[in-house]
Amino acid sequence: MLNSLEDAQQELIKNIEPLAAEPVSLLEAVGRISSTEILADCNMPGELRSAVDGYAVNPDLSGNYDQLLVIGQLKMGEVPNSPLVPGQAIGVLTGGLLPDGAVAVIPHEKVQIKDNYLKSLEFVKPGNNFKQPGEDFHKGDLILGQATRITPGLVALLATFGHGQIQVYHRPRVSILSLGSNVVPCSSQAARGEIRDANGPMLASLVKLDGGLISSVELAGQKDMTQIKTQLLQMLEQSELVITTGGTYTDGINEIHVLIDEIGARPLFREIPIQPGSHNGGAVLGSRLIISLSGNPAACAVGYHLFAAPALRALQGIEPLLPRVNAICSSRYTKKTASRRFVRALATPREDGWAVSILPGQKPSMIRSLVDCNALIDLPPGHPPMEAGLEVSILLLDRSAV
Amino acid sequence: MLNSLEDAQQELIKNIEPLAAEPVSLLEAVGRISSTEILADCNMPGELRSAVDGYAVNPDLSGNYDQLLVIGQLKMGEVPNSPLVPGQAIGVLTGGLLPDGAVAVIPHEKVQIKDNYLKSLEFVKPGNNFKQPGEDFHKGDLILGQATRITPGLVALLATFGHGQIQVYHRPRVSILSLGSNVVPCSSQAARGEIRDANGPMLASLVKLDGGLISSVELAGQKDMTQIKTQLLQMLEQSELVITTGGTYTDGINEIHVLIDEIGARPLFREIPIQPGSHNGGAVLGSRLIISLSGNPAACAVGYHLFAAPALRALQGIEPLLPRVNAICSSRYTKKTASRRFVRALATPREDGWAVSILPGQKPSMIRSLVDCNALIDLPPGHPPMEAGLEVSILLLDRSAV
Repeated sequence: MLNSLEDAQQELIKNIEPLAAEPVSLLEAVGRISSTEILADCNMPGELRSAVDGYAVNPDLSGNYDQLLVIGQLKMGEVPNSPLVPGQAIGVLTGGLLPDGAVAVIPHEKVQIKDNYLKSLEFVKPGNNFKQPGEDFHKGDLILGQATRITPGLVALLATFGHGQIQVYHRPRVSILSLGSNVVPCSSQAARGEIRDANGPMLASLVKLDGGLISSVELAGQKDMTQIKTQLLQMLEQSELVITTGGTYTDGINEIHVLIDEIGARPLFREIPIQPGSHNGGAVLGSRLIISLSGNPAACAVGYHLFAAPALRALQGIEPLLPRVNAICSSRYTKKTASRRFVRALATPREDGWAVSILPGQKPSMIRSLVDCNALIDLPPGHPPMEAGLEVSILLLDRSAV
Repeated sequence: MLNSLEDAQQELIKNIEPLAAEPVSLLEAVGRISSTEILADCNMPGELRSAVDGYAVNPDLSGNYDQLLVIGQLKMGEVPNSPLVPGQAIGVLTGGLLPDGAVAVIPHEKVQIKDNYLKSLEFVKPGNNFKQPGEDFHKGDLILGQATRITPGLVALLATFGHGQIQVYHRPRVSILSLGSNVVPCSSQAARGEIRDANGPMLASLVKLDGGLISSVELAGQKDMTQIKTQLLQMLEQSELVITTGGTYTDGINEIHVLIDEIGARPLFREIPIQPGSHNGGAVLGSRLIISLSGNPAACAVGYHLFAAPALRALQGIEPLLPRVNAICSSRYTKKTASRRFVRALATPREDGWAVSILPGQKPSMIRSLVDCNALIDLPPGHPPMEAGLEVSILLLDRSAV
């Protein structure tokens, strides 16, 4: 079995194909991932247009723009039907078509008009304030790459080229199963010995931010192994990815290993030596994935970012792994770290680079460190206690910015 | 009237109150903004628990952990019903309650068990691997601040404290109106002189990313001013914010100024000297807002980020303005800039700070610069042409990371 994080991640990603494509209205497309590329089917703009509100001008026969007869005003969208002859000007609007014979456009605030004669207040260079055909895009240019996240700017571009609907990868359907017979729904009164389910709602929220669709968020509760097996198989029917949490050490056995073996899934990795979350695992059944995470909330969150988020991104056809940057750590960290350790942290872009601080509440069972967590500090195995002010390598959890 | 960007932004924000609150299920809460604070109603954990899977131990009478009788195994969620006496050990699970008399917990991988007697392989410090009552949160601690964006970590925390539903600010309803009689829907064939609506879909996408709900995306098209006035008033009935685009110079008049005056809205700012988008404006009618943006796509996008996005954030009760950082600009920029200018750019977090590059296609009519735009370089008025490698001040458009 694999035993480095990077090997486990590669093994996972190797087993993932992007989902099928579906059409989506352009008004709903932002944030989705394109499944096909689109080329420009014409020049943009398609023909010569004015870049400003002003006057299309043709100099008089001696080349002057000082005494031009204003022959009218083109309205919004009007197609000019006669050419501009030397000595003439005509009012034009931003984006409006220009008459033949136009040599330049002068902005309205740069002309003086008296008795229907125009005088330019600025030096006029031929082509000034023209939008040339194809100046923004040429016919044949790539306007949408394959596997590209749709930004508002791309929406504008696709709209301009008439694509009211585009093809995007399906959003991965995800089911979440919290194991542990004493775990009760978060809205329950928990009796002594019971624990409210924090991981289910947390994982559902993470999945939503990573573009997944939640099929179900369930607890195993008091079910026996046969019933849980049925529950897990149903989830795998309804979803591309099932994330389980807890059950990694129950009454001396690893319940989720047993479940994975019993349903005939193929383990991809198990027991990767990282803290928190050394019991995380991944498995595949046909085209369906199972990521099994520790039940401790911090371990569950770290495992999500290292394994489940990359799976969700690979299913949507995009670069799976978290971006990594260096940051100056403003906190000391006195714990010696035998295993490779992911410390929950708050990264802040500063004028002179990234700063990062270690969040309070670093025990794997604690939730406090997760509240503001937007980065993980990656400390190598055997890392000595650390003074404040050192440079560390961090993973940025919120990838919408990068 | 105001004439600096900052004054205009402050005037806008001053006129905005956060919307009313509504309840939302915790499973749907991620990304929403809390309207009330919540305090911890108990310690978390509520009583002593084990931090690991292992053995709760009580040393023998001489203080040794070398020969302890294993008296059983506590099951998941089991409430221990008898104390551990000196010389005894009992199997416990992570998060499980501990029997009275337990002095520490030894992880299962750090013990040797032979003939039901346990020997610790590690030095045992009293309290080792205990989760102390209140170690994560004390009763009375603030667990959710007011006007806080709900993160997945906060969802976990709220779940642990039993909040299956919380109060959040309503999402602002937004209508978008594209003016211009020659602007046609993006899925139409555009005739000569007509232009497909790129701004409507782009603005709808931006609003969605900023937490708004789209009420309608419409064109004024061939409607006359009376009809457009009715359309605008209907939009203001259905939405907290109406964003208009275009119509800032139509046949020599500023159509949107006329509309705003005719419906009796109070202008907050007009004609702020920035490029692109000097014709942007803001107005208020009762509690409803109108942001009027230029019809040129780049000017429309810049105006959105400077005025509409802050309005949407203020309506949701959070810090309205874009975060600003310094960045090293890898591009030259040879255009002299008389007005303050917002250059569309791509910012990248680097190991040693922010880098930014100027995107191609900087004419206000062009869409190319918007496709990858995640930052605006803020060049002051009169800024000279700029060589590559200089430090510039940038606004980060994607605030989910910061």
